[in-house]
Amino acid sequence: MTTIEIQERDIVGENLITELVAANRILVRQGVLDAFGHVSARSAPGASTFLLSRNLAPGSVTRNDVMTHDLDGVVLDDDRPAYLERFIHAEIYRRRPDVMSVVHSHSAAVVPFSVVEAPFRPVIHMAGFLNPEGTPVFEISDFAGDGSDLLVTNGQLGSDLAGALGDGNVALMRGHGSIAVGSSLPEVVYRAVYTEVNARAQLEASVLGTPRFLSRGEAATANGSVGGQALRAWNVWRAQVAKEVGSDD
Amino acid sequence: MTTIEIQERDIVGENLITELVAANRILVRQGVLDAFGHVSARSAPGASTFLLSRNLAPGSVTRNDVMTHDLDGVVLDDDRPAYLERFIHAEIYRRRPDVMSVVHSHSAAVVPFSVVEAPFRPVIHMAGFLNPEGTPVFEISDFAGDGSDLLVTNGQLGSDLAGALGDGNVALMRGHGSIAVGSSLPEVVYRAVYTEVNARAQLEASVLGTPRFLSRGEAATANGSVGGQALRAWNVWRAQVAKEVGSDD
Amino acid sequence: MTTIEIQERDIVGENLITELVAANRILVRQGVLDAFGHVSARSAPGASTFLLSRNLAPGSVTRNDVMTHDLDGVVLDDDRPAYLERFIHAEIYRRRPDVMSVVHSHSAAVVPFSVVEAPFRPVIHMAGFLNPEGTPVFEISDFAGDGSDLLVTNGQLGSDLAGALGDGNVALMRGHGSIAVGSSLPEVVYRAVYTEVNARAQLEASVLGTPRFLSRGEAATANGSVGGQALRAWNVWRAQVAKEVGSDD
Amino acid sequence: MTTIEIQERDIVGENLITELVAANRILVRQGVLDAFGHVSARSAPGASTFLLSRNLAPGSVTRNDVMTHDLDGVVLDDDRPAYLERFIHAEIYRRRPDVMSVVHSHSAAVVPFSVVEAPFRPVIHMAGFLNPEGTPVFEISDFAGDGSDLLVTNGQLGSDLAGALGDGNVALMRGHGSIAVGSSLPEVVYRAVYTEVNARAQLEASVLGTPRFLSRGEAATANGSVGGQALRAWNVWRAQVAKEVGSDD
Repeated sequence: MTTIEIQERDIVGENLITELVAANRILVRQGVLDAFGHVSARSAPGASTFLLSRNLAPGSVTRNDVMTHDLDGVVLDDDRPAYLERFIHAEIYRRRPDVMSVVHSHSAAVVPFSVVEAPFRPVIHMAGFLNPEGTPVFEISDFAGDGSDLLVTNGQLGSDLAGALGDGNVALMRGHGSIAVGSSLPEVVYRAVYTEVNARAQLEASVLGTPRFLSRGEAATANGSVGGQALRAWNVWRAQVAKEVGSDD
Repeated sequence: MTTIEIQERDIVGENLITELVAANRILVRQGVLDAFGHVSARSAPGASTFLLSRNLAPGSVTRNDVMTHDLDGVVLDDDRPAYLERFIHAEIYRRRPDVMSVVHSHSAAVVPFSVVEAPFRPVIHMAGFLNPEGTPVFEISDFAGDGSDLLVTNGQLGSDLAGALGDGNVALMRGHGSIAVGSSLPEVVYRAVYTEVNARAQLEASVLGTPRFLSRGEAATANGSVGGQALRAWNVWRAQVAKEVGSDD
Repeated sequence: MTTIEIQERDIVGENLITELVAANRILVRQGVLDAFGHVSARSAPGASTFLLSRNLAPGSVTRNDVMTHDLDGVVLDDDRPAYLERFIHAEIYRRRPDVMSVVHSHSAAVVPFSVVEAPFRPVIHMAGFLNPEGTPVFEISDFAGDGSDLLVTNGQLGSDLAGALGDGNVALMRGHGSIAVGSSLPEVVYRAVYTEVNARAQLEASVLGTPRFLSRGEAATANGSVGGQALRAWNVWRAQVAKEVGSDD
Repeated sequence: MTTIEIQERDIVGENLITELVAANRILVRQGVLDAFGHVSARSAPGASTFLLSRNLAPGSVTRNDVMTHDLDGVVLDDDRPAYLERFIHAEIYRRRPDVMSVVHSHSAAVVPFSVVEAPFRPVIHMAGFLNPEGTPVFEISDFAGDGSDLLVTNGQLGSDLAGALGDGNVALMRGHGSIAVGSSLPEVVYRAVYTEVNARAQLEASVLGTPRFLSRGEAATANGSVGGQALRAWNVWRAQVAKEVGSDD
């Protein structure tokens, strides 16, 4: 396996489409996405458009499936069906100019934290990007009433969800899953994977006793230094999907 | 991997046999079936016959192993040994004209819910097909006495089980497993997989606190809209088994 | 994948050696054995010798590694190093003429039951071979004192362990693992796999509440009818390892 | 698969570099390392230098990536970036002349024990190398204050961690992971793997009741005799990575 060493500055233009396909495949391989969930990338810094696959399982996404959406969730360059929940991405990009990439997943260990009172907090240094006071939970019934399908299928609900996320990096969606945001594809993929890892660790620690979480200072410092290692993870995961990504070109 | 986009209307006749083989392979791959369990399909809407493999582990089933059974569990077109529990399928098809496909499995996370008082309920929006008040548990000793082998090996027990299922989509079988029903192969496979996913989520949430389940309205709405996405899952899972299914033709 | 349909009567002589190799590979693949643990077969009904690999990880065993041992644990036909714990097998074969095959494993979900008070009992119909009153636990410190290495490395300890097993099919070894016995390789492999499956189910049910176990009558009946399906499992597992077993011939 | 039977005396010089690459790959395959963590080897008995990959995910490490470090963490023969936490290795080699190899990992089941009061103790005979009184936990905030990134990024913190390890074989790092040391690569790989196995077993036993741990005498004896079997595990794991290690030469 050849080692690929990508720098963030390389992930632009045509490369951005290819790396978005790779992100889909990586997240499937890491168990964050299955037949559902999605990952998007803002077209360029400051842009009001973003790239997201058509309505397709992440493990099947190729370059040819990536479509350009605007911040109202309108697809600009294609007429194939879009994801029902593209408004998650649109409204986060609208509210958060700093965000360059968004993952929405149902990853298995995170979901249980969305339906209980116990707050989801960083228990490992790899997850310093989580809020040490507790991750916000988007309670959709506060916005859509008690009989919705829990899906974020319009701009208003997307905006409500973006409001729950606030300035954070991760928010839970009750009975549904979570979102993670980042300043690049490698960063958001890293965060989505380690959100799941932290959830598993917090669950298991809770079985054994009362976990000691990262302090506010530890989370901030760890997010700075450990987060900077996201490219190391990306490079090894990227190499694992090189063959399947390449074959779609 | 070529993307296959099947529509439900395509799954009939010879295709139905092939897709039933695919369903066997998908359920093994998704961890719902192992060396045991089975999946069947009604021959056609309104038909009093159904298709089911001969007595064989699901991972070995090919087109040549599929046999036609009537609603008394009699095999009409073959003389090889049938599954001991074919009466599960026969009696559900007899009682429920709306049902076009049935899965019986021992999937790992579901079984524990069959032996405890805690009700099994939908905790994720992907499982809106589960009864929000709790999934019925078929207590076989009420019908077969306290010394049975827990197997549904005749029409009477099959009918008793179908009665426990009632109008629902899933029923648990104490100390044994579960059944899921649907209006098509893709739907029932989706339900069998997400019954397992919901069980894992409910178990883990129970470790952390008292889970908030889907409300009655949420379950109904989610079942309508999320359930409609079953084909998206089917299409990606179908592609994963394309090579092994194809090679049996 | 070609379906192989082996009958128990076929597993004798040279075939027995091949099938013992297959059993090693199957148990590794099913997660029962890893780099440690072993499976043996009595040479023939009534024989005072048994077949067991030389001291080698189960995943590496080939026909050439199988050696004949007598009931004192002496290797009769080879001078390569034997397993330290061959006395487990020797003494069970001596005490139990009905036993034709023995598995000793450290399988992950079973070990926790060996170190707690909670009895290990059949919770699923596939595990009717387990004692419904609770599986015996071999407490080695009762025999070897409080400073042993927990290994069964001589005939006396093997005999003590065989005594703990008594007339049962499975015994736990505190802080170590378990043994399963059967009347054939397919049966003992089935039992070793479903001992692990039952342990996982009992553990998870215990998280949710107080499990209802199989009654004495249910266990006995299930063991008779479900146990008879062991060959169905064997045939599908056997096919999965056909290539690696074949290549060693 | 050809059986490779390595003796410890063979792992020196050029072979040591190759075997260090193999150790990286084995630990990834066994689930101990993922994109992070590292394994090192002292250059030779009594040497004041050690071998460790450049800053790279373990699954990507080849012979060409291995660099020689001195006990101050200075790389002697290369100018590519080193691991931030190379001081873990350096200071343990300085303090413990008996140690020939060190693993630092974030393995999943061990981390929860680092953040709770419950001591981590040997519950299986394969883990007799763990301290029966409880594994020390390195609480980094005692040394680096309450706002660190939890990383061991300088010689002082490395020395503090080595002090927490003392004469033991394993130490936990709060909210981070663990270290294992040994007298050879096969031994330390074995210990890192079975530290994880023991953690899973202790966690699950804790769900069921109060585990009985190995006594002091049992741990000591088991460490002597079972630990001597580490090469059996190494040889099977080594064979599994033979192709990928070989292809890097």
